[in-house]
Amino acid sequence: MNITDPAKSAKSNSAIALVAEWIVPMTHTPVPGEKQLSSSKWLEGHALIIEDSKIADILPTEQLQDRYPDAEITQMDGMALMPGLINAHCHAAMSLLRGFSDDLPLHQWLETAIWPVEAKFVDEDFVYQGTQLAIAEMLRGGTTCFQDMYFMPDQIAKAVQQSGIRANIGLMVVDSETVWARDAEECISKGLNVYDQYKHNDKLSFSFAPHAPYTVSKQTLEKLSTISFELSLNIHMHLHETTAEVNDYVNQHDIRPLEQLHQMGLLNPQLNAIHMTHLNQQEIDWVAETGTHVIHCPQSNMKLASGCCPTGLLLDAGVNLAIGTDGAASNNDLDMLAELQSAALLAKIDSLNPEQLSAYQALYAATMGGAKALGLENQVGSLKPGKQADIIAIDLNQIETQPVYNPISQIVYAASRNQVTHVWVAGKHLLDNRKLTSLNESTIMNNARSWKEKIKDCHQ
Amino acid sequence: MNITDPAKSAKSNSAIALVAEWIVPMTHTPVPGEKQLSSSKWLEGHALIIEDSKIADILPTEQLQDRYPDAEITQMDGMALMPGLINAHCHAAMSLLRGFSDDLPLHQWLETAIWPVEAKFVDEDFVYQGTQLAIAEMLRGGTTCFQDMYFMPDQIAKAVQQSGIRANIGLMVVDSETVWARDAEECISKGLNVYDQYKHNDKLSFSFAPHAPYTVSKQTLEKLSTISFELSLNIHMHLHETTAEVNDYVNQHDIRPLEQLHQMGLLNPQLNAIHMTHLNQQEIDWVAETGTHVIHCPQSNMKLASGCCPTGLLLDAGVNLAIGTDGAASNNDLDMLAELQSAALLAKIDSLNPEQLSAYQALYAATMGGAKALGLENQVGSLKPGKQADIIAIDLNQIETQPVYNPISQIVYAASRNQVTHVWVAGKHLLDNRKLTSLNESTIMNNARSWKEKIKDCHQ
Repeated sequence: MNITDPAKSAKSNSAIALVAEWIVPMTHTPVPGEKQLSSSKWLEGHALIIEDSKIADILPTEQLQDRYPDAEITQMDGMALMPGLINAHCHAAMSLLRGFSDDLPLHQWLETAIWPVEAKFVDEDFVYQGTQLAIAEMLRGGTTCFQDMYFMPDQIAKAVQQSGIRANIGLMVVDSETVWARDAEECISKGLNVYDQYKHNDKLSFSFAPHAPYTVSKQTLEKLSTISFELSLNIHMHLHETTAEVNDYVNQHDIRPLEQLHQMGLLNPQLNAIHMTHLNQQEIDWVAETGTHVIHCPQSNMKLASGCCPTGLLLDAGVNLAIGTDGAASNNDLDMLAELQSAALLAKIDSLNPEQLSAYQALYAATMGGAKALGLENQVGSLKPGKQADIIAIDLNQIETQPVYNPISQIVYAASRNQVTHVWVAGKHLLDNRKLTSLNESTIMNNARSWKEKIKDCHQ
Repeated sequence: MNITDPAKSAKSNSAIALVAEWIVPMTHTPVPGEKQLSSSKWLEGHALIIEDSKIADILPTEQLQDRYPDAEITQMDGMALMPGLINAHCHAAMSLLRGFSDDLPLHQWLETAIWPVEAKFVDEDFVYQGTQLAIAEMLRGGTTCFQDMYFMPDQIAKAVQQSGIRANIGLMVVDSETVWARDAEECISKGLNVYDQYKHNDKLSFSFAPHAPYTVSKQTLEKLSTISFELSLNIHMHLHETTAEVNDYVNQHDIRPLEQLHQMGLLNPQLNAIHMTHLNQQEIDWVAETGTHVIHCPQSNMKLASGCCPTGLLLDAGVNLAIGTDGAASNNDLDMLAELQSAALLAKIDSLNPEQLSAYQALYAATMGGAKALGLENQVGSLKPGKQADIIAIDLNQIETQPVYNPISQIVYAASRNQVTHVWVAGKHLLDNRKLTSLNESTIMNNARSWKEKIKDCHQ
């Protein structure tokens, strides 16, 4: 890890050296069934070097003076550095509906609360300003990259680009008319226009986001399958979120949704299957064999009483697992630290096995797991020389995370997101000692309050 | 709510007026089966008056000048005032073992990690300094009262008294020898000495804390039943935490633990039954009929894979439910806001019903529910004139909790504990804009680090 090209020193004028108490690189890939953490999974007495947008080096602190004599040193006592969290499923703009309606069955919640409000209020400003609110929340909580699914990807892309966060924008597709498009055809063509406009942006990538098997026809999925293969775009789709959804599909089509996708060749490493709370062993095997990624949204599944994704069984089968918050209208936050803790706790209670989804496995799912799902594993997800400098610092030097026997345990089971003090994306310092550098917090808050004034009277 | 004695104005020299954007008094008692929140459950445009240790009044802000012309006014825009959270089950001193060992089955965790360390290191300083660490964490997270179960109640009482927090100290009883006492007899006599020493302290109350049916004999429980009745002390006990524990008891005694206690008359309003993850309908009925309180520790039950307390069924049966964090060695924090959120989420996924344990019911369990369990419902648990001024302020004016359609939803499902900015216990301002006023944070942190240096090499 500390072998560097001696020529690097010549470039060290622009180097930033982060000297943190712990570095948690997440470079170790957990082996299925691997138990317990070991101290080899973090470094002490090391420094991380950022040069431009990349991680240039990780080396013992005592070599810093020799190797990077001109580096600008930031001393970070009591802090842990780790890769930025990757929120693998979000509906960012829906943050403007946070807490609008809770504690209802999914369909009642959608039909009486969310859909009527969306139909009445969602416009370009809503998507742009809602996405800004979400990005501000995510950066403040240590998320450096997210995958989104919502209408008007042009507005999402604009908000993402201005903020400096990394994102994979799902080009949403549904068959019926929405505020964004008349039908699936128009979803695809308008989506591809946005893709063309932004495809050369370093920090933006795209996927197709057909909403779910019950809102997108087989014909549309076949078309997406072809286009996504040609353009090397992932497909990001809600799958097997509830029993009712699976049963209804079987009643109509005489086949379970996942088997249908499998028959169509859609189970493959380009597919991000979101939720996956109802799976039989055959389906787990298919997911594993085909390299399909599973995006687990534990708090959303709990709050909506959807069911439990069998994360332990999936990991044991060798499936790549990522974690998402889902939208703040259902969750009600975009707090990836809380979400990965919930993932670890839910895996244990659901399987009645406290060894399922260890602290390290949960943290891996929220970093490298997300990077793999998004196809960004060579760029982000771990701290490794040559990768993008998507890095967060967590201050463990707080009452709430003392004493520190094991920084990974503290990060997963005890730290709160406000302990994230610094965030870099591609080497840009986007959160500096809890202050957002690229976004105007008070403007974002004022916009949120204005939307509340417009929307609140729709309350049931 | 805003009817006051006009004579009050005469006393208003010492009054403090908190003018918050929202006041969530928690005075409404949820009816079993009651769905959804309504805006009648919080107040806007009101001020709360603290006089000495008590809440003197809650009144519309426009009456403030007339009624309390000399009150010292604190303007709290964007903040919600609510009763302090009550942590109904904790092993405070075990905070010094936070993150020492995770992700193991309960008995392996106890036998290979926790018990050996406790046997080697627990002494008076460990209990005193560990309890201080826990109290600092609890106050910073909005907990104003906790119920504790650990050895050396004299040290716990000392730490509690110095901090100004309110507590019910469980006088721990086990049959076997511990660092505190040779046997149950000595546990009781030493416990009663501590009780005698502190029983007139306003903010301290006591209970007996027989550890569990598998560590405390029937004879000891009979003795405790008599003494607790005579002294009007509650009994606080782990019950039906795991299937194994229930099955082992049945194998040995041919009766389930709860039925045994019921036969002994121990199911009654003085009993705080902790965990209760394995209950049949008959047992739920007994608990309801006898007025036994249930203390739910959702994150501990999840992390140790113990099982799910059927909170929805208990509430529907009319049982009083309170919430506890358990100790930080297993949980790994004392974060009551996260814990009550977990309670709401776990109830829904366990019952597959999103209407179970609504936001309001979860918040009620963490405030009035706790007060009732501890027998303090006339003093604390809600914001009501005449009650003790145990109050917290939560700053909702943050990116993470915008926009605010409903402050209760934001508190339960979105706010993090660092948004707790102010805490009063009995009118004393113990957390002032995130600063602890009665405890020295750096001393507490240094002590925690010293313990880590001593203990860390015992790591498995």
